[in-house]
This record gives sequence, C-alpha cells and structure tokens, in this order.
Amino acid sequence: MTVAVLCGGVGAARYLRGLLDVVEPCEVVAIVNTADDTVMHGLYISPDLDTITYTLAGAIDPDRGWGLCNETWTAMAALQRFDSVRPAGSRSGESWFGLGDQDLATHFYRTSRLAEGASLSMVTAEIAAAWGLRLTMLPMTDQRVSTIVSVPGLGELSFQEYFVREHHGVAVDGVRFDGAAEAALTVEASHDLRGASAVVIALPGFDAMLAARRDSVVAVSPIIGGAALKGPADRMLAELGMEVSAVGVARLYAPIAGTLVIDQVDAALAPRVEALGMRCVVVDTIMKSPAVSAALARTTLRAAQGASS
Amino acid sequence: MTVAVLCGGVGAARYLRGLLDVVEPCEVVAIVNTADDTVMHGLYISPDLDTITYTLAGAIDPDRGWGLCNETWTAMAALQRFDSVRPAGSRSGESWFGLGDQDLATHFYRTSRLAEGASLSMVTAEIAAAWGLRLTMLPMTDQRVSTIVSVPGLGELSFQEYFVREHHGVAVDGVRFDGAAEAALTVEASHDLRGASAVVIALPGFDAMLAARRDSVVAVSPIIGGAALKGPADRMLAELGMEVSAVGVARLYAPIAGTLVIDQVDAALAPRVEALGMRCVVVDTIMKSPAVSAALARTTLRAAQGASS
Repeated sequence: MTVAVLCGGVGAARYLRGLLDVVEPCEVVAIVNTADDTVMHGLYISPDLDTITYTLAGAIDPDRGWGLCNETWTAMAALQRFDSVRPAGSRSGESWFGLGDQDLATHFYRTSRLAEGASLSMVTAEIAAAWGLRLTMLPMTDQRVSTIVSVPGLGELSFQEYFVREHHGVAVDGVRFDGAAEAALTVEASHDLRGASAVVIALPGFDAMLAARRDSVVAVSPIIGGAALKGPADRMLAELGMEVSAVGVARLYAPIAGTLVIDQVDAALAPRVEALGMRCVVVDTIMKSPAVSAALARTTLRAAQGASS
Repeated sequence: MTVAVLCGGVGAARYLRGLLDVVEPCEVVAIVNTADDTVMHGLYISPDLDTITYTLAGAIDPDRGWGLCNETWTAMAALQRFDSVRPAGSRSGESWFGLGDQDLATHFYRTSRLAEGASLSMVTAEIAAAWGLRLTMLPMTDQRVSTIVSVPGLGELSFQEYFVREHHGVAVDGVRFDGAAEAALTVEASHDLRGASAVVIALPGFDAMLAARRDSVVAVSPIIGGAALKGPADRMLAELGMEVSAVGVARLYAPIAGTLVIDQVDAALAPRVEALGMRCVVVDTIMKSPAVSAALARTTLRAAQGASS
C-alpha cells in the first residue's frame, strides 16, 4: 500500500510525522504544495518543502513551527545595513522573510541545482536524502505556480508578502494561482497518487485525478470550532464569501474527497457534512503531540481503506 | 584634481587606504576589476569590489585580507550536509569559496538589485554608501567579463576555481578574458579616468584610453625581488613565458603607463625599466602599514603630476 499525502506546511508536517509512526516510510509519498514558493535575494525558497523536511528530520524549531532549531540570524541582521540606501520601489535586502544561517544552506543547494538544470523533483529528493528522510517527497509540480493574493489598497501580493510581510493582517478579496493552468503534476506524483490522501491544496491535475477515485480520498478540516488553528485560512474563507466552518470546508472538498475528518468540537456539524454527500469522521484533530498525530493518521487511513475495501 | 585608480583586490585596497590619507575622498575614483566575479549558490559575487569596500570601511579581516572581521561561517558549515547527495558533475553546495554569514548580506543585496534591473555601477555605489565610504567606487564595466584560466589536465577554470579551489597550485598555460571584447567601460569610468592611475588590469577600453594619456599613468609593480607578495602573479608570468621581475612587468605596462614604481629591493633593475621607455621610481612598495600605503600613494601622485605638469 502506498499512502499519498497532498500537503502544505506546519499542519501537514505534523500529520506526516504521525503517519510515519503507523506506516513504513517507504510506503508514504508526500506531494507538497509549491504554490507559496518565492525568490528572495536570488535564492529559490520552498517554505512547505522545508518545513516538512525539517519537521520529519526532527530539526524544526518547535516554538516557531518553521526553520531550524538552534538557528542563528547573522545574515539577516547584516541586511539592515542596506535599509538606508535601498532606492524607492526596490525590495532588495529586505529582511522580513527570515532566513536563518543554517537554513540558508538548503536554499543555496536548491538554487544552484536548479540553475544546473535539475528539476525541483530531483533536488527535493536529494535534500530529503541529505536530511536522512526515508519517505518519498515530491513537489506537486516542477513548474512554477504562484499563489497571488488580492488585497484592496495594496493590490496583488505574493503569498509570502501577504502571509509573512503583512502578517496576514489585511483583508483579502481574491486568490488566484498564477501558472496553475499550465502546470502539470510531475510524472512521479501522478504515478504515486494512489492510496489514502489528506488533501490540502487543489491543483487542476489533482482535481480530476482525485474526483475519479473520490471514495478513498480523505480530507482533514483545517477549520475547528469556526476558526483556523493557525494562519489566515478562517479569515480568507470569510473574505471570499464562504462559510467559516467544517461545513464550508466540506463544500470545497465534496467534489474530490469522499470523507471529511472534523474535530470533536464540531461533532454537531456532522449531519450537515453528510448532507453534502461526504462521509464524516469525528476525532481529535489538534496535533499537539505525536500521539495525537499518529491517532489522526490511523483514522484517515482507516477511512480511506474502509471506503475502498 | 581627480585621482583614478584602476584596481584589483588586497594590494589595491591597501593602496587606496593610503591614498585616502593624502587625498580627499571626493577626489578619488576607484575603478575596480570585475573579471574575477563569480556566481555561487545563485549569488552574484564581486570579490575585488568587496575587498576594497570592507578594507576602506575598516571592516576587513586583517589576517585573511578578505572578508569581514568577527565573521561566522554557519551557512558554509551547513552546506557540508549536501556533500553526500550531490550528483556526479554537480558543483552545487560546494563550500570551497568561503562566504561568511555577515558577508552574505552584501551578496544578497547585490544579487537582488541586479535582478531588479539595476546596473552593477548603481549597486556598487549603494553598497559603498551603506558602508559609509565617501570615495567614488565603480566597477570597470557593467557587462560580464570572466577571467578564464587554462590548466593542463583540468581544462578551463574560472579565476576563483583556479585561485581559491585549486589554491593557485596548478600550472597555467593560458589566460583569456571572456566577454572582454564586448564589454565597455562604464560612462562614469570613462568620464573619471583622468589623473594618476595605478594600473592593475588591462581591459580593451582601458588600453586605448590610457595609451592616449600615457604620461600621467603610473603603474606599481606587483613583482618584488622576483616574486609576488601574495597570490600567483609570479608563477602565472613564468608559466606564460614572461620574465618574473619588475622588468617583465615593465614590458607589459610600457604601452599604457609612463611610469613604473618598483620596490627598493629591485633598485638595480631601474636602468632596464628605463630602457623600455618608462620612467622608474624606486620606493618601499610593501604596504605593511598605513604609513607605507600613504607614502606610496604620495609617490604615485607626484609621479603622475610631475609628468603632466
């Protein structure tokens, strides 16, 4: 059995850590969001790939949830020297996107390999191996896809400008995925996209492929008790006119996932989820410990296997 | 009076420091070699510009002669993780070119500004201002020129591969300047190229311009007592079939410089330099202290002015 997980950042990383407690690493394929990738200082940066890699390697900073533990910030601090000379309109040398000194090595290696002509898939496999990971890690695509967030008054921002620079503290009136129409799932991702899946992001190729085997696709609601555990997902849903609840999530996932896992605080919403044509599983989804992550992983696997058996 | 100095790395930086002790910074234009620039980890690196900037800012590491003092090397150390996964033929993640954590900020800023469309001249002025320098600093050209060193058995190497990676410990049978035929002096460099000059490198545009006002061009011999003070200039001259002495240097500079300054240990060579049609000035040229640098600066200025008055 291969378990394919379509995943984003911090939450997905914790889910994967739990999954690896209950499934052999060689049976797990993580297909990771790259729509929030960015270029800073000439360096190609894949925040979700790195968060997952560092988390599974046991090297993530547990307090921040991103970046390496025991990190230093010398290069970022030295950038401040250029604040006084940066011309109007230039974004060079800005330090709002924190890159730790150790973390930089990952971006150096990835940027240089891409410049040598390697695909992001190849580089991702090399970086995972360098960190001793034994699962299969794949970017969702080798092409560039960029989440573009539209903010009244500020115009269009890259996801990292919205999320990190603006601390997702501004209202959003649109989201689009630049390049998504032209982007293709990698051959490896298409090949491995079988087994149970926790869907975190939708890409055109994903939608069709998941809809065709919807019964064994399991999604985990990121909205718990009407709010996102972390980040701006709740406000973004509201700003885009959607219901901020597990039911709103169910409406988005119903076409591609047969099962929605919701938190126990939302147990009363299960009938409304089921009315949308999804099975609904109610458990603890707040992964505050490895044990909860592992239990959630077991639940999602059972849901996917139960449905397909 | 404007003093234009055509300069390279460590020696030129020390010369400039001396010059700034005897001439107002607003009267000094440093036109700096960029033929040894390189791209590492996706970052555009200008070693001579940085050595001069850091030296004049009083921030250079005095023992190494390059890079910043009180530097840390966290990012470089972290690169070693990728040694085990780098595919054959890839040079990604190699750490033989030392980039300190503070120093990285300079490369980040330069790389990002160039990507925004700024010229290297503009970025160089901004970086010099950020470090509080008051002289005018210009790259010799805004186009890319690359020193390519031919080494039997290893093929063609970039200058940094030859100089740093191979510790200039391999014999050279050719040197060419890739892109030099197409490169143009910047408008600013052409404009400022008057006054005395210590010539360190020759670029096509330089040669013609200097030959036309050869009388007030002063060169300082980098060969002292038959050897280079630092680096491979002596061996490179020998390997390329030239005499390794101040006389060999005089043969190279005679078409473009009216005066050659040689070290006092080479005093006996003065008649042979003069036989090549150059004036010869004999002084202490080993800049082991700021006082020697300043004295050498005075000597070169006097030579240039004496000749042109």
